[in-house]
Amino acid sequence: MTTYRAQVRVWLKPSVFDPQGNAVEKALLTLGFAGIEEVRIGKSMEFLVTADNQESAEAMVDRACRDVLCNPVMEMYTFTLEARQEA
Amino acid sequence: MTTYRAQVRVWLKPSVFDPQGNAVEKALLTLGFAGIEEVRIGKSMEFLVTADNQESAEAMVDRACRDVLCNPVMEMYTFTLEARQEA
Repeated sequence: MTTYRAQVRVWLKPSVFDPQGNAVEKALLTLGFAGIEEVRIGKSMEFLVTADNQESAEAMVDRACRDVLCNPVMEMYTFTLEARQEA
Repeated sequence: MTTYRAQVRVWLKPSVFDPQGNAVEKALLTLGFAGIEEVRIGKSMEFLVTADNQESAEAMVDRACRDVLCNPVMEMYTFTLEARQEA
């Protein structure tokens, strides 16, 4: 078995309005950060995955994203996997 | 002036308990994702920065992280900058 470190990022789809990003953008503008635009805010997740090989680890993370971590109607996700050490 | 795409990730410091990550970990376990552990959840932010050069863009993003985007008591941040096209 191998342990992998997964890094998942979940974002609102470009077509979906991002109220949080919009609020942060206005706050930054008010505080003098004039050069910052198009702020989008998402979720970052990191966890360990123990699996037989890279392929089954990827399958597990992909399924976890689709079923639990991401709302497929409004969000999209990307993830990376890095092998750590033999479990 | 150059436009840069900034990607910021904000995390709870390792010493801080992550209730959200803990809840997601339990939910994943309940749903049959036995191989997933140590779930940590943070924020991802993406935005455009217009500045004279890479250095001043980095300074602006760093200041925005320290002053607005991250709570230095409990959180830590990392960011990357990618030059886009001349503004």
